[in-house]
Amino acid sequence: MNILFIMYDQLRFDYLSCAGHPHLETPNFDRVAAMGVRFTNAYVQSPICGASRMCFYTGRYASSHGAQWNGFPLRVGEQTLGDHLRRLGMGCWLIGKTHMKADAEGMARLGLAPDSEIGARQAECGFDAWVRDDGLWAEGPDGFYDEKRSPYNEYLKSKGYDGENPWADYANAGVSDHQIASGWMFRNADKPANIREEDSETPWLTSEAIAFMAQAKEPWCAHLSYIKPHWPYIVPPPYHAMFGPNHVPAPTRHPVEREDAHPVFGAYMENRIAQAFQRDEVRDKVIPAYMGLIKQCDDQLGRLLDHLEKTGRLKDTMIVLTSDHGDYLGDHWLGEKDLFHEPSVKVPMIVYDPRTRADATRGTTCDALVESIDLAATFVEAAGGTVPDHIIEGRSLLPWLRGERPAWRDFVISEYDYSATGQAVKLGVAPRDARLFMVYDGRFKLMHAEGGFRPMLFDLDTDPEEFHDLAKAGTHEAEIARLYEMLSRWGRRMSQRVTMSDADIDAKRGASLRRGILPFLYDGAEVPGELTEKYRGPVRQRHVAGEEEA
Amino acid sequence: MNILFIMYDQLRFDYLSCAGHPHLETPNFDRVAAMGVRFTNAYVQSPICGASRMCFYTGRYASSHGAQWNGFPLRVGEQTLGDHLRRLGMGCWLIGKTHMKADAEGMARLGLAPDSEIGARQAECGFDAWVRDDGLWAEGPDGFYDEKRSPYNEYLKSKGYDGENPWADYANAGVSDHQIASGWMFRNADKPANIREEDSETPWLTSEAIAFMAQAKEPWCAHLSYIKPHWPYIVPPPYHAMFGPNHVPAPTRHPVEREDAHPVFGAYMENRIAQAFQRDEVRDKVIPAYMGLIKQCDDQLGRLLDHLEKTGRLKDTMIVLTSDHGDYLGDHWLGEKDLFHEPSVKVPMIVYDPRTRADATRGTTCDALVESIDLAATFVEAAGGTVPDHIIEGRSLLPWLRGERPAWRDFVISEYDYSATGQAVKLGVAPRDARLFMVYDGRFKLMHAEGGFRPMLFDLDTDPEEFHDLAKAGTHEAEIARLYEMLSRWGRRMSQRVTMSDADIDAKRGASLRRGILPFLYDGAEVPGELTEKYRGPVRQRHVAGEEEA
Repeated sequence: MNILFIMYDQLRFDYLSCAGHPHLETPNFDRVAAMGVRFTNAYVQSPICGASRMCFYTGRYASSHGAQWNGFPLRVGEQTLGDHLRRLGMGCWLIGKTHMKADAEGMARLGLAPDSEIGARQAECGFDAWVRDDGLWAEGPDGFYDEKRSPYNEYLKSKGYDGENPWADYANAGVSDHQIASGWMFRNADKPANIREEDSETPWLTSEAIAFMAQAKEPWCAHLSYIKPHWPYIVPPPYHAMFGPNHVPAPTRHPVEREDAHPVFGAYMENRIAQAFQRDEVRDKVIPAYMGLIKQCDDQLGRLLDHLEKTGRLKDTMIVLTSDHGDYLGDHWLGEKDLFHEPSVKVPMIVYDPRTRADATRGTTCDALVESIDLAATFVEAAGGTVPDHIIEGRSLLPWLRGERPAWRDFVISEYDYSATGQAVKLGVAPRDARLFMVYDGRFKLMHAEGGFRPMLFDLDTDPEEFHDLAKAGTHEAEIARLYEMLSRWGRRMSQRVTMSDADIDAKRGASLRRGILPFLYDGAEVPGELTEKYRGPVRQRHVAGEEEA
Repeated sequence: MNILFIMYDQLRFDYLSCAGHPHLETPNFDRVAAMGVRFTNAYVQSPICGASRMCFYTGRYASSHGAQWNGFPLRVGEQTLGDHLRRLGMGCWLIGKTHMKADAEGMARLGLAPDSEIGARQAECGFDAWVRDDGLWAEGPDGFYDEKRSPYNEYLKSKGYDGENPWADYANAGVSDHQIASGWMFRNADKPANIREEDSETPWLTSEAIAFMAQAKEPWCAHLSYIKPHWPYIVPPPYHAMFGPNHVPAPTRHPVEREDAHPVFGAYMENRIAQAFQRDEVRDKVIPAYMGLIKQCDDQLGRLLDHLEKTGRLKDTMIVLTSDHGDYLGDHWLGEKDLFHEPSVKVPMIVYDPRTRADATRGTTCDALVESIDLAATFVEAAGGTVPDHIIEGRSLLPWLRGERPAWRDFVISEYDYSATGQAVKLGVAPRDARLFMVYDGRFKLMHAEGGFRPMLFDLDTDPEEFHDLAKAGTHEAEIARLYEMLSRWGRRMSQRVTMSDADIDAKRGASLRRGILPFLYDGAEVPGELTEKYRGPVRQRHVAGEEEA
């Protein structure tokens, strides 16, 4: 069996028709959901691209692997899906985005050359790169955001798009008055992107995936990782015109959220992206473009599924659809992601397992508390391995797919490190205190902020829209204490004992005794004679000065 | 300045005359204490050789570096004193014991050859090994406990001691009835070791240190790491006869400790070593030998100090004396170490800084709550560096030596992983739950045990001997909650963000904006024009199918 692990970027959990979106039809997402299981309570371990992805790829919490924000390098030697799957004989390939920054300093310290096989995998988050493209070829006064080579820009140039950065000038721009209408500017989001649809990023990467599969040695795990529907919010025809302001839902926000807001939440509500999304004209332009981008993703997923079906691969390929985080789109007075409201931290998670043992659950949903780190465990088990649970902190989802009711976690954790952001500067929070934690038990959701702030608490049963911060009122001390106890338990988790499995530990029990370590005997009668016989025998020589014996 | 970092193994904090021992005179320890500062509240981060040492060498808590018990490999790439000090131009050398197990699997995964310079340092805990000798050349039916080459055994053979393992047959054995009287058997602890005193382990390693210093390129940090007074408890003449049962203090133990004992404490009180040390004849034999071993350490320290003085090195060498943990010696009905009573978890810590800035504190004591991980930070600062506090979790002690009153921690943490022990088997505790945590705030000491056990609590102000577990009585809920809150705070600490310093993070703030990431603009008016100019300009081509523009 192969594994096609498809990730979208910034795809909200509720912008799919199978998840109940009122205006957006996504028949191909729905098709996979009908073949598999849709997990309706799947949470990412950090609502930001880079950190979240490092959690997916390592199967470990953000504060376990330490790459806690975009551009924070993943430390050398941290094990990833590639390490685990290759050990089981399965290739592990990348087609698209990881947002991983290599630990160049650590690699140099260990003498790992980036152009060696080992070094290249360290630098690519454990993957063998069929194509690596993080999809953010932005450029400013200080240069490119992403200094790597851009395969997508090279593709565009080969197709005749001119200039240094056709990603910016064509794929992510429209036209207005014979001027580039930058996709960065929200007022341009309703314009058609300046590119042939087939050359835009989502079809291009889909073609790469098809080309990969045509030649791949089996079994393989392919991480097909799209940049879309992530910003810049602009999409080529016909998708730019499919949706309009009449398809834009009212924002999920309430004036009470702004009253005595938690300081961190308050700082986020005041940042530039939040202020933009608080404007109706921004939502009316951006959300239709966002929906168009998703519609294009769905069409390309259909293309991929048809290809798999035609080539017979649908019968032996596990398919996973998910996202690295959501998008506030103006909900809770916010834009982007970063905090822990559902539109940001909850993601779509659809898993299709072609094997007959999963027949019982096809087309169903599962409301277990799922974490993004569970996928790494799922893939290891799907590849025939035993989950190395001293390294991977997630749990395999396969029992759910088989219709079992496994013993399961009673809370999920997410984290956010905002140390490098303007909000930390504004609040005067030191880098090590600019860290947020979410604990959610399926009903109550606690946000803890380091640095002496009060927590936030929501009751999603009575307040599913998360408007009413119960920690303000001081009425829920017992619930807050209970969730803090969960956070405390999690904080003490065993996360770094990565060189010793339980089996290794079992093998050590009593081993030192059988290797002659006996610091507990009065005369040896306490243990079987074979354990002490090395220390008995005739004296050969006595070296005490002045008194030699035979 | 050079650093002579001397560690003894299993040396109790209170078995020195400067710490008030009633019978043991240690004039050379006292001499260093008179030249420097003796820290009277120094705690190890794990009361077991291997884990404790990995904390000293990394400057990180046991659950941060993950090498949580003897023989648990230190994961490849974990940074150590060697990494930090060499970066500052200081060599970092090992003379003696580390009890470090290399992460052979991780090294193979990263392609690091053990015989390369980088690989050798990875395998030696970051040190360049002048001589590595862990001092436990025990052998049993399954072979040697330590499978490395034994430099000390080679030395003994070169001196004419015969056989395969003269460490066992001579250095750690006496003679009785022309039979080897093994040093493992406590009944033999009063016998003279079967070796010339000058050839025993402590003088041998001292000679190695002197030889090292004679040729070392400056500046250097030398970790002189003795195996003694660690078991086997046997010592050559004249030390074997210096102390007798009349010098053995009454055990610090009380019947109340055995009443409704905490299950983990109870399991330890029932293990073989505890049962041995509960016998008076064991204490009467072992403790005089233990004192003799310390007396020999003190004499060898005097030899070293005299050498330093004679060679002028006393003026430019920082000297640190400490231990990796203590020894119960029958206190609290226990033998060995492992748990968190003072005789086990508290260590001697004497720091002499030759520089004039430390003149104000010479011969004083300091009762600040010190952790063993503070030494790594101290050495980095002493070598002229800034402590990389995103990696090293300890804090430099130099301010105390200068007579300052720095802002300081309000609790110390220690941990113990007993997953590989018989106690875990006996209690039926899974490997990941066989973990203990100590929180001590200078008055109250809490022990938390994973796996659903109740905590233990001692009030060292009213019960300095730690006999009365206040958690049994249920009378101190508020203190227990307060210490749990400290543990929880510690559990959320930032321990793995090791690839980004605060300075790196400061440099990132706003950097993406200046590299063209602008996902928050309606029309660009929100920011200075230079930030958006890359995205303006005449359109060159419009690639929307069917409608080409100039």
